[in-house]
Amino acid sequence: MGMLVVGSVAFDSVETPFGKVDDVLGGSATYFSTSASYFTNVALVAVIGEDFPEKHITFLKSRNIDVSGLERASGNTFRWKGRYTYELNEAHTLETHLNVFQSFKPVLPESHRDYEVVFLANIDPDLQREVLAQVKKPKLVACDTMNFWIQGKRDSLVETLELVDILIINDGEARQLSGEPNLVKAAAKIRAMGPKTLIIKRGEYGALLFTNDGVFAAPAYPLEKVFDPTGAGDTFAGGFMGYLANTMNFDDASIRKAIIFGSVMASFNVEDFSLNRLKSLDYSEIEDRYREFRRLTHFDDI
Amino acid sequence: MGMLVVGSVAFDSVETPFGKVDDVLGGSATYFSTSASYFTNVALVAVIGEDFPEKHITFLKSRNIDVSGLERASGNTFRWKGRYTYELNEAHTLETHLNVFQSFKPVLPESHRDYEVVFLANIDPDLQREVLAQVKKPKLVACDTMNFWIQGKRDSLVETLELVDILIINDGEARQLSGEPNLVKAAAKIRAMGPKTLIIKRGEYGALLFTNDGVFAAPAYPLEKVFDPTGAGDTFAGGFMGYLANTMNFDDASIRKAIIFGSVMASFNVEDFSLNRLKSLDYSEIEDRYREFRRLTHFDDI
Repeated sequence: MGMLVVGSVAFDSVETPFGKVDDVLGGSATYFSTSASYFTNVALVAVIGEDFPEKHITFLKSRNIDVSGLERASGNTFRWKGRYTYELNEAHTLETHLNVFQSFKPVLPESHRDYEVVFLANIDPDLQREVLAQVKKPKLVACDTMNFWIQGKRDSLVETLELVDILIINDGEARQLSGEPNLVKAAAKIRAMGPKTLIIKRGEYGALLFTNDGVFAAPAYPLEKVFDPTGAGDTFAGGFMGYLANTMNFDDASIRKAIIFGSVMASFNVEDFSLNRLKSLDYSEIEDRYREFRRLTHFDDI
Repeated sequence: MGMLVVGSVAFDSVETPFGKVDDVLGGSATYFSTSASYFTNVALVAVIGEDFPEKHITFLKSRNIDVSGLERASGNTFRWKGRYTYELNEAHTLETHLNVFQSFKPVLPESHRDYEVVFLANIDPDLQREVLAQVKKPKLVACDTMNFWIQGKRDSLVETLELVDILIINDGEARQLSGEPNLVKAAAKIRAMGPKTLIIKRGEYGALLFTNDGVFAAPAYPLEKVFDPTGAGDTFAGGFMGYLANTMNFDDASIRKAIIFGSVMASFNVEDFSLNRLKSLDYSEIEDRYREFRRLTHFDDI
């Protein structure tokens, strides 16, 4: 049981219409593993620099996250700087400093090679495959990607997609990857590339799931205050995969529930900067909001 | 039983990425009443010009729509010309000729004053109130409006809103009317203006319902082909109000079902130009798609 995630651990500097923070804890694997930790054990594989403070590692450990695959390299930790306008669906990247991430060659500790559930967060698709190749018998593999790889490393990304069961991307990425403006058609093209399960995130509009069993539309939770969307996608993926790794049941009904748990976690995350809201979360709050999603979407039979 | 609608009957010329039509049957009241006619009896109040062909009136009658309030005036019928790009959520108006609509002063036939369910489609808010004042004992009044009236006749619109139970507008209009980018906050402000039930349409992303009982999020049906979005909002309103007028039950559960019926009707309408798809519809198709909306949104309890 439990699961493995490879991705980034970073310092983020973020500006939204509601405030500003500098060099706070961020990164796809950080959001993912913190979110997933409410559902299952997570082993995190990533790289940090000499400047990464012990307190953040202490926090990850406090969430019961296995950090034995978190490599400390000489140099600085990956840094991202971005800004959001009132159009909170879209981040405007101001600066990206790969730093120690530039020469990251993940080598899985022996104990990590037995995980059956794997999430390849948004990193170079070459690296995604290198990590996956070290896993002995993967049962469920999901991945994320972004416009940068779709445009710059398309062939490698296509190779990765052939190996994954679930792809989680946003609507703009789905259109870019498929060359198809209509999402239903885009989904058919992408699923033909490998991932039989496709989740298309639409920010404040929720997510669409495409499988052999049909389509599922999950709403986003209508929030009065979206403070900072940074990490929402990774937090969604963390709740989603964490739930599946916990149940080890991958049928359509479970995947739908997992999407709602992912949406629940994302709805909390955007309420504050960095991982602040995820840090203070109680499992009963997660269950309460899941039930609110039921009320939000329920209508009677004909 | 049955219901009254006042709005426009028009000729539309429309260009989408998939085709082009000239002077086809359109207008808010036309789409609304045709859609509603699958659920209840509808009396249509509108004005047409000398150029309006008998065949369109024959069609409306074939849908059992009461056209005794359809006034024929000297001059030409209202004409609208618009274009959609691949961003099918937004119409670009190229031409608007009000023609006979410019001097329209609706006078309800005596038989029309007893209707209890009234829909004030998107027309001058002065006219909306003039029509409503002629209805003896309205039980459920809903209305639509647009950016043109929000900007140009705000005071009159606010007066109308004080008199209606349900407002149905799109997200851009909700933001414009409330001056609030966040839809949850916008909804609170708008509901304080009068309409206790607010439906915010979000095109391909579905609709949000705000009532005293909370929020309901309805998805749109994911279509492989959206041919022409013209009239989708009025068709939605027609299915929604038609269902309510049929059941005369206005509780939260009924309103949610009505929203799904509205979404079902809109999903059919966008599959072809003008009212072509609505013309050929069978009630069993409506029920089938309602069930598809259930499958589209269902997830198990926690």
